[in-house]
Amino acid sequence: MKKKITVMGGGTGGFVVLSGLKKLPIELSAIVTMMDSGGSTGRLRDQLGVLPPGDLRQCLVALSEAPDLWRKLFLYRFETGDFEGHNFGNIFLSALEKVSSNYHEVLETVSYVLKTKGQVIPVTFDKTHLCVEYENGTILKGESHIDENNKETGRITHAFLEPQVSANGDALSAIENAQEIIIGPGDLYTSIIPILLVPGIKSHIQSASGKIIYIMNLMTKLGQTSQYGAMDHIQDLEGYLGKAIDVVIVNNGKIDAEIIKWYTSHNERPVINDINSSTFKGMVIEENVLTGAAALTNKADKLTRSILRHDSDKLARVISRILSV
Amino acid sequence: MKKKITVMGGGTGGFVVLSGLKKLPIELSAIVTMMDSGGSTGRLRDQLGVLPPGDLRQCLVALSEAPDLWRKLFLYRFETGDFEGHNFGNIFLSALEKVSSNYHEVLETVSYVLKTKGQVIPVTFDKTHLCVEYENGTILKGESHIDENNKETGRITHAFLEPQVSANGDALSAIENAQEIIIGPGDLYTSIIPILLVPGIKSHIQSASGKIIYIMNLMTKLGQTSQYGAMDHIQDLEGYLGKAIDVVIVNNGKIDAEIIKWYTSHNERPVINDINSSTFKGMVIEENVLTGAAALTNKADKLTRSILRHDSDKLARVISRILSV
Repeated sequence: MKKKITVMGGGTGGFVVLSGLKKLPIELSAIVTMMDSGGSTGRLRDQLGVLPPGDLRQCLVALSEAPDLWRKLFLYRFETGDFEGHNFGNIFLSALEKVSSNYHEVLETVSYVLKTKGQVIPVTFDKTHLCVEYENGTILKGESHIDENNKETGRITHAFLEPQVSANGDALSAIENAQEIIIGPGDLYTSIIPILLVPGIKSHIQSASGKIIYIMNLMTKLGQTSQYGAMDHIQDLEGYLGKAIDVVIVNNGKIDAEIIKWYTSHNERPVINDINSSTFKGMVIEENVLTGAAALTNKADKLTRSILRHDSDKLARVISRILSV
Repeated sequence: MKKKITVMGGGTGGFVVLSGLKKLPIELSAIVTMMDSGGSTGRLRDQLGVLPPGDLRQCLVALSEAPDLWRKLFLYRFETGDFEGHNFGNIFLSALEKVSSNYHEVLETVSYVLKTKGQVIPVTFDKTHLCVEYENGTILKGESHIDENNKETGRITHAFLEPQVSANGDALSAIENAQEIIIGPGDLYTSIIPILLVPGIKSHIQSASGKIIYIMNLMTKLGQTSQYGAMDHIQDLEGYLGKAIDVVIVNNGKIDAEIIKWYTSHNERPVINDINSSTFKGMVIEENVLTGAAALTNKADKLTRSILRHDSDKLARVISRILSV
């Protein structure tokens, strides 16, 4: 029997971790955040009234075992004309939603054509927006306002969904049945915590037997984790999980000075590892999990995206050791 | 051994005839016109520099044996937002062209997902525009200018392509190997003749052994066959074929007065059957080949489209008799 592993996240981080885990002999489920409202996804939501396709598309492509052409097609981004800035995979999911009788049919159809390994599970099928409140009382509504061009440097004291939604039953089952639950990497407040805000997710995690493995972010994120060290990430996440994290994977590979300079000019910096045994009781795994390529650019969805990434294969190797698979 | 049948055309007429022929026990090839420049297709050509997808998409969907959802998806037309007026199938073909190394790969991939019965063959892989010259000396360049809002009522004296193109070798083989060649229905100068203008097509038809079966249009078309009776259609077509037509299928079903009124208000009328044995030596098959539904509207590509159609199944029955299959 293969181990049942459930991954939670979205965005580029979800793509990276799933691309690596796909190669392990495990039974994978990916619970995907459905609160994106920026870029191509945001325009499709607004104009067509569809569910946000962007995070789903990234996870579906990551788990795809279809010929490369299909993966390239789904990641293809139009650069001119009526479709400028739109991603073909997003258009595919949106049109498919329009002609399907329900979203299960959408997932079945797209998984068939992409030959997806494992199950990609939207955390909810309801439309909602992520909102956060800062310590200074400012409230931001909509994932894109929190994620992009956000100059708030204070702490987020409270994150919530508006309107409230129902969890996808498949997401709850995937948590219940998981032998281990992997969280991240990904922007804490826009990719990870939105999943935990969906009613039923937290309580199912609390009662689930699977260990929680958290992949720590490499860099801080302006507007959500500006001044955060590793322990801040852990404390916020444990608050929304209602449960202690069992294992944290922290990068100890050296980040190129040029890359740090680029981030610094964007008011972001490496997440400092300030975890110690008096503050965190779980296991800490420090390892070089950086991509070999010094710098990467990804214009898939937004004009500027993280230029530093985790390496899929390095992450998968560390995780396979933890899972003993 | 199944009979090898090659169909030539495009647009709605191509869709109708192929949808019916798909059900016959024959080996089908469809040679598709690649000169459309209007609507969604025209915008995609202009903005992305792709080959015109519209006619191909119609033929591919007509021959699809995939579940209905795929056919619905490929015919889905966005009605709002950035994609307004665009057809998903057109977007699919365009994005696929962008990520494929050649158009054969595009056709293979789309045929795989649509489970296309038979072969859909673009007459050329080169980009070109259809041009026509009228008896008053007016020259129109671009299929959309000839097809849409064209007020010319005179005869077209000369049709040509600019720039000149090369034929797709598969199209030449499909003509050579065909036991019968079916032409139409479809707008004579914008769907049928453009195929015959591609170098090599005419000479291959001339030397081919397959009989030529022509499905006569139901209505005249403003700007291309304004004052045409059935014999005018035959004479023009035989000119571009360089060969006599063997069989003509002409509708003798009664067209509803309301529909005739609608066409009259658009300066179009039923094609009068003025064929007689002194002017045409081939076989004439007169039959009711009209759709049962009195009026149909199709907003797939353009805002107003022919509201009267041939019936797929009735056409297929007549053709199956001719082919003895």
